[in-house]
Amino acid sequence: MEEKLLNPLDVMQECAQLALLGKGYTKTNPVVGAIVANQSEILSRGWHMAYGGPHAEVNAIDSCPVSTEGLDLYVTLEPCSHSGKTPPCVEKIVKSGIRRVFIGVVDPNPLVAGKGVEYLKNHGVEVYVGYMEDLCASIIEDFVKFITEKKPYYTFKTAQTLDGKIASSTGDSKWISSEASRTYTHYMRAVSDAILVGVNTVIADDPELNVRMVKSDRDPFKIVLDPKGRMPLDRKLVENSADKLIYVTCAESRITEALRNKGADVITLGGDGSLDLNVLSDELVERSILNVMIEGGGTTAGKFFDAGLVDKVNIFIAMMIMGGSVSSVGGNGVENVAQAYKLKEVQSKHFEGDLMISGKITDYKTSVLDLTEKVRGCCACGCGKDK
Amino acid sequence: MEEKLLNPLDVMQECAQLALLGKGYTKTNPVVGAIVANQSEILSRGWHMAYGGPHAEVNAIDSCPVSTEGLDLYVTLEPCSHSGKTPPCVEKIVKSGIRRVFIGVVDPNPLVAGKGVEYLKNHGVEVYVGYMEDLCASIIEDFVKFITEKKPYYTFKTAQTLDGKIASSTGDSKWISSEASRTYTHYMRAVSDAILVGVNTVIADDPELNVRMVKSDRDPFKIVLDPKGRMPLDRKLVENSADKLIYVTCAESRITEALRNKGADVITLGGDGSLDLNVLSDELVERSILNVMIEGGGTTAGKFFDAGLVDKVNIFIAMMIMGGSVSSVGGNGVENVAQAYKLKEVQSKHFEGDLMISGKITDYKTSVLDLTEKVRGCCACGCGKDK
Repeated sequence: MEEKLLNPLDVMQECAQLALLGKGYTKTNPVVGAIVANQSEILSRGWHMAYGGPHAEVNAIDSCPVSTEGLDLYVTLEPCSHSGKTPPCVEKIVKSGIRRVFIGVVDPNPLVAGKGVEYLKNHGVEVYVGYMEDLCASIIEDFVKFITEKKPYYTFKTAQTLDGKIASSTGDSKWISSEASRTYTHYMRAVSDAILVGVNTVIADDPELNVRMVKSDRDPFKIVLDPKGRMPLDRKLVENSADKLIYVTCAESRITEALRNKGADVITLGGDGSLDLNVLSDELVERSILNVMIEGGGTTAGKFFDAGLVDKVNIFIAMMIMGGSVSSVGGNGVENVAQAYKLKEVQSKHFEGDLMISGKITDYKTSVLDLTEKVRGCCACGCGKDK
Repeated sequence: MEEKLLNPLDVMQECAQLALLGKGYTKTNPVVGAIVANQSEILSRGWHMAYGGPHAEVNAIDSCPVSTEGLDLYVTLEPCSHSGKTPPCVEKIVKSGIRRVFIGVVDPNPLVAGKGVEYLKNHGVEVYVGYMEDLCASIIEDFVKFITEKKPYYTFKTAQTLDGKIASSTGDSKWISSEASRTYTHYMRAVSDAILVGVNTVIADDPELNVRMVKSDRDPFKIVLDPKGRMPLDRKLVENSADKLIYVTCAESRITEALRNKGADVITLGGDGSLDLNVLSDELVERSILNVMIEGGGTTAGKFFDAGLVDKVNIFIAMMIMGGSVSSVGGNGVENVAQAYKLKEVQSKHFEGDLMISGKITDYKTSVLDLTEKVRGCCACGCGKDK
């Protein structure tokens, strides 16, 4: 029987899936997945499991059960050529005797941005750039926003009726969405660095904002926006998880003092009863919080949309009409239809009777694809050499 | 070659499609489709084309190119046994020599309700009841509501953003939905007896509410709700189609007088600044208006939902977020999630980038299916005789 050769595209797709296993754990690093293989067989797998820990390539190489001399390495993101928390991956690769490296996309980090590819080539490694680029760029959009703009990636999530309502006239909201929708929300929490709500949600619902319905050892930060200092201190967020609470307000008060005493992180932004969300973004980045899921309500969501800060939306729509005025996205809103935030790459999924519509408002993929195309040079022809 | 026999289910499905050709023209009559066939071939088709005109069965029999002696008749609704605008269809069927009659569903009109089937059987015709019942009941739900409750069937249609907004903060709404969505809206207008809006829509948008984007010789009535008499007289609805305008307000005024002079139908309902929509429903039924499409805005839609009057919704959702507060369904809204209007038989269609979600809130089908089951008796066994 003839040996069946591996299809590099299939292998890269699996690398991307491995990468996602690290989601939620890599802080300001991107998620990366890697595979070591010979021409016909996958030999070992690795992913970046935690910020400060070994990179995906290193994990894959170190767990290979045979000598990596002459083998192939597949990795979703260009291996780093600079020293950070760990030594440069490209040195490790060269030392390991890997013969060919297949790269998903080039690292947009200006410290890398093609230098990893160059180093490998200069040390006699064959490098092939641009495999499943769209997928490999897609999984690091949050990192791309951080590395290019030093801002967190904001995902807006809501569960609403068809007419866009998140609660009845009396404030009842349990439950608009199905159990399957709520379970998926807990998965989304598990892969977010932080969950963000307004103080009205804390007052009305006393939420825990933790991960319950799916298995996870992560507990995301809980950010509460409370410009006017109305936060009650007898809430679950304060009593059960003050160490994970980031309380954002305009000015110091009896409440900020009490929360600090309980172990909460208090951010006072100044301002006259309203919070500057761009300044907040800087504060979050300083805390290595890159992925923020905005979980409502409409006033808070409206402020983020008004500030043009939302990158992605995940909207669960229950097949019912509620009427009234408690809307999923409030704020001032856009001035005209042309300015509305259009969704790109729209996807829909069903969760029991609910429909989830997700889509991206910003695009942090194209720049990575362009960079990858530029670095690819003549590599795509299979020669493995520069032009 | 052996002759291939007709499948009665296929023939009945075509009858239902024929029936829909009459939609918009039959006033207080149901839409009905009929086919005359022998065992292997359809010979003629008919549908109820206009209120007062011949019924579907009569049209099919009269257009049959050969003698109907011994042939089969398929009809979506039980043939009538009473004289209305036309003589009873059952007499015509018996006289025509038709041997077998296949019936979709039994007519819920108490004047018929099985009497048609009985008459036919008593005159030696073989009758088979209950073919494509679900479909045949579905196409007459508006008639069922009318015949059992003497109320119009209200369909709520809106075009909104994902967050349920129908206009921006400045009132801009052109266009939230795609051209394909708007074209389908014009089809829906073409099969509605009337389009209903609130005076705010007339003030803001100066709509024509006519059928433009699809071919049709129908021009539905345009109902404007204006409890407080704020209707401007320089609107297209007044200038171009006053004869089709039904103006609904609380009290007589300079405006009601002017509109009457222009040929509009004015309904004054009394009341102190708000309209009793149940009384309005009675007025519409008196005018033989059975199918009303509520085209917004949020205040008007909210009132119909608050009154529990909406039967069906067609919501076009554009994949964008607008924020603000101009909501597709306002009103008081329900008090809690359990009371929300849940959609049944939800369907979704794509119109360019838009998603249309449609579903029914009320159920006027089950009673017809139950009645049909009752009348079916032993007919389903194929003996063609009563038990």
